[in-house]
Amino acid sequence: MSTHLHHLISLAELDATTIGRLLDRAERMREASLHGTRRLDLLAGRTVLNLFFEPSTRTRTSFELAARRLGAIVVNFDLARSSTNKGETLLDTLHTLEAMHLDAIVVRHRETGTPAFMVRHAMSGVSIINAGDGNHAHPTQGLLDALTIRQHHPDFTKLRVAICGDIRHSRVARSDIHALCTMGVRELRLCGPASLLPETSEVPGCQVLEDFDAAIEGVDAVIMLRLQKERMAATLLPDEASYFQQYGLTPERLARAAPGCLVMHPGPINRGIEIDPAVADGAQSRILEQVGNGVFVRMAVLAEALGR
Amino acid sequence: MSTHLHHLISLAELDATTIGRLLDRAERMREASLHGTRRLDLLAGRTVLNLFFEPSTRTRTSFELAARRLGAIVVNFDLARSSTNKGETLLDTLHTLEAMHLDAIVVRHRETGTPAFMVRHAMSGVSIINAGDGNHAHPTQGLLDALTIRQHHPDFTKLRVAICGDIRHSRVARSDIHALCTMGVRELRLCGPASLLPETSEVPGCQVLEDFDAAIEGVDAVIMLRLQKERMAATLLPDEASYFQQYGLTPERLARAAPGCLVMHPGPINRGIEIDPAVADGAQSRILEQVGNGVFVRMAVLAEALGR
Amino acid sequence: MSTHLHHLISLAELDATTIGRLLDRAERMREASLHGTRRLDLLAGRTVLNLFFEPSTRTRTSFELAARRLGAIVVNFDLARSSTNKGETLLDTLHTLEAMHLDAIVVRHRETGTPAFMVRHAMSGVSIINAGDGNHAHPTQGLLDALTIRQHHPDFTKLRVAICGDIRHSRVARSDIHALCTMGVRELRLCGPASLLPETSEVPGCQVLEDFDAAIEGVDAVIMLRLQKERMAATLLPDEASYFQQYGLTPERLARAAPGCLVMHPGPINRGIEIDPAVADGAQSRILEQVGNGVFVRMAVLAEALGR
Repeated sequence: MSTHLHHLISLAELDATTIGRLLDRAERMREASLHGTRRLDLLAGRTVLNLFFEPSTRTRTSFELAARRLGAIVVNFDLARSSTNKGETLLDTLHTLEAMHLDAIVVRHRETGTPAFMVRHAMSGVSIINAGDGNHAHPTQGLLDALTIRQHHPDFTKLRVAICGDIRHSRVARSDIHALCTMGVRELRLCGPASLLPETSEVPGCQVLEDFDAAIEGVDAVIMLRLQKERMAATLLPDEASYFQQYGLTPERLARAAPGCLVMHPGPINRGIEIDPAVADGAQSRILEQVGNGVFVRMAVLAEALGR
Repeated sequence: MSTHLHHLISLAELDATTIGRLLDRAERMREASLHGTRRLDLLAGRTVLNLFFEPSTRTRTSFELAARRLGAIVVNFDLARSSTNKGETLLDTLHTLEAMHLDAIVVRHRETGTPAFMVRHAMSGVSIINAGDGNHAHPTQGLLDALTIRQHHPDFTKLRVAICGDIRHSRVARSDIHALCTMGVRELRLCGPASLLPETSEVPGCQVLEDFDAAIEGVDAVIMLRLQKERMAATLLPDEASYFQQYGLTPERLARAAPGCLVMHPGPINRGIEIDPAVADGAQSRILEQVGNGVFVRMAVLAEALGR
Repeated sequence: MSTHLHHLISLAELDATTIGRLLDRAERMREASLHGTRRLDLLAGRTVLNLFFEPSTRTRTSFELAARRLGAIVVNFDLARSSTNKGETLLDTLHTLEAMHLDAIVVRHRETGTPAFMVRHAMSGVSIINAGDGNHAHPTQGLLDALTIRQHHPDFTKLRVAICGDIRHSRVARSDIHALCTMGVRELRLCGPASLLPETSEVPGCQVLEDFDAAIEGVDAVIMLRLQKERMAATLLPDEASYFQQYGLTPERLARAAPGCLVMHPGPINRGIEIDPAVADGAQSRILEQVGNGVFVRMAVLAEALGR
């Protein structure tokens, strides 16, 4: 595997050493920040462009802050006003942007494979950083989740983790699975209604369960996924209340997990659908730590990809 | 009252010393700017986020310029594309943004009380700066109006000022009233159609008048408010022409004021509705001075709130 | 003509010395960039505002990168959310922005003459840079096209150039004509369907032809224009396939030009309408060089307009 990261498309391509190095680097970014050094000049004079074909304020803002705090010039490519409504193709957009001498393009697209397609067709040395493509991958989310877990439990090999919700269609789940399996997590359980679960053959080394009470038993961290309303119909659960009853993370269910079990969620939260507000805002919630780590992980990725 | 300002929600909470200090600081920002020092590094490494739930190009741009000229990183939170359309609550948005280690959030919201609500629920040391909430307050507008007046008339205690228009629903009027009363203005007259005037009990120390000719008599400054078209129906005036006849600031009416009376307006102007173009663009107009002072006042507020 | 450029409205007002100086300056910007100096501080502390009344991601991004790489503060005036929807006039917008002490306004507007109107009414020393107005002018496009040609053929007086497409309604064509005629190009041929050609009296010194095969014969550079779909109806050509047959740049047609003829297009490209993909992406295409030169030309123009 690569020892130096230039593009970041999926965590499937990274080994444990590379992931560990990125997490270490994110940790150093966090420490520098805590000591008041909020702005570094590692990327002074470099240009990062946010190319978001799907709306996302959280992730775009997180990448924008990460790049700016490293001193980069950041340009947001505003798609509502973009030339793509003049019928320009993705390739023309890519090559046009490259011709303006960008150092990195952070891309989000509803279609799986768009960032990898851009890597294959890039004509310059531009770094392509995947900020989420279709159901495929959201690698910085996988890294920030791994970082958040590691801050509480430094040794992944001792950990049991559950991910609950629409695993089948979730790029977050896919990147979490890659990160946690690569880091050697002891047990990884994937849980949700049958129609939202992956084939077991797709997730080697993971347990696939429909019963959330069983899945959460004794775990050290539980990652709840957002239920997309449009997926509700695909489940056999007639409504959100039924979903909450079977798959919502309540205080009672959380009590089945290991003491101090980390409660995680990529956000934004559907309170009362996949998670009880008392748990989302409770003492075990790490949801806001995840957000904070998101900026540090993205700083680390950009620094690695664009670094000297 | 506070000696150091951390949040700015309303001028009602500020005493004359604090307001005076902010005006002095804005004045020093202006002088530095006139001497060619357009960029300072007071806020280098700090992050300011513009969180505008209501559209406003003028005010957002003014805050953005203020923060950038002090060296801050500024991120605009674009609501059209925001996760709030995924049903995220205001509190989740606030806490998510805080988790990204922001130093200040500049917020505008159509609902009264949103910035104060954010202060009560903030979990970090983030400064909340109100850029206008409902009918409640627009404190930087109050400060910039006070600064503009003070540049021409250093002693507030000698001044007569009139505010004319939809006082009842105007956050600008409310903040102007707080600023001018706190600074000890000699007379403050509020004028407009009966249905657009406040209860006299709400505005102690002010005169409330329906007759604009009487209200403007002898004043040193007149602040005209923008007539929101949707308020027209609430008045007994059948149309805009009638409104202009009774409450429009014409050269004839202006002649009733003190010589050199300052003509002010928060913008954008409805020419021919609340103000005659000859007055808006005339020699006594201070409208563009207000805009310029807006940037300096916002620099002062940000420097005070985020300063070392 | 001016020896120092303060505004840039149209190339019609520039002499060959001024255009040559701007091209030289752009070339130095390019060289600095190639040597790794991507950020300069020529415009540190200066403020540039992008005022785009028409959507354009490419041109806005190019100007934004140019200004930021020179160290300027750049603010994008977002029209979807702007106060202009409160009925503010263009003049009020201009004067309000000026009051915030901007150094330059980069303006694009669908109406011819808007930038010149702003120059006439500006009250401060703000520079107005035209980023395209109606059918009138797009001067930085004219400059970047001249720069791209000059990089391959230093002596304009030996060159034959053809421009093909909707010449009549194209601000790009108009600015290209000014740039190339001023620089003394040997032959300039304008080609397109009769309804899309200018009057010969409007383009002194140019040849006006309907036959593309004749127009392209022996030229050293051919500039293809984008066909606006709404113009199709004005031609006698019943559909896009017919347009392509008569005016599309195919490998066969390109073979009629001089060896190594430069293929240029302002973008975005309509593949298969005005240009064959094999030509657009072929070895003679200079389209991406044009994009890269766009940033350097805009750096040169901003540095000249705002320079010490």
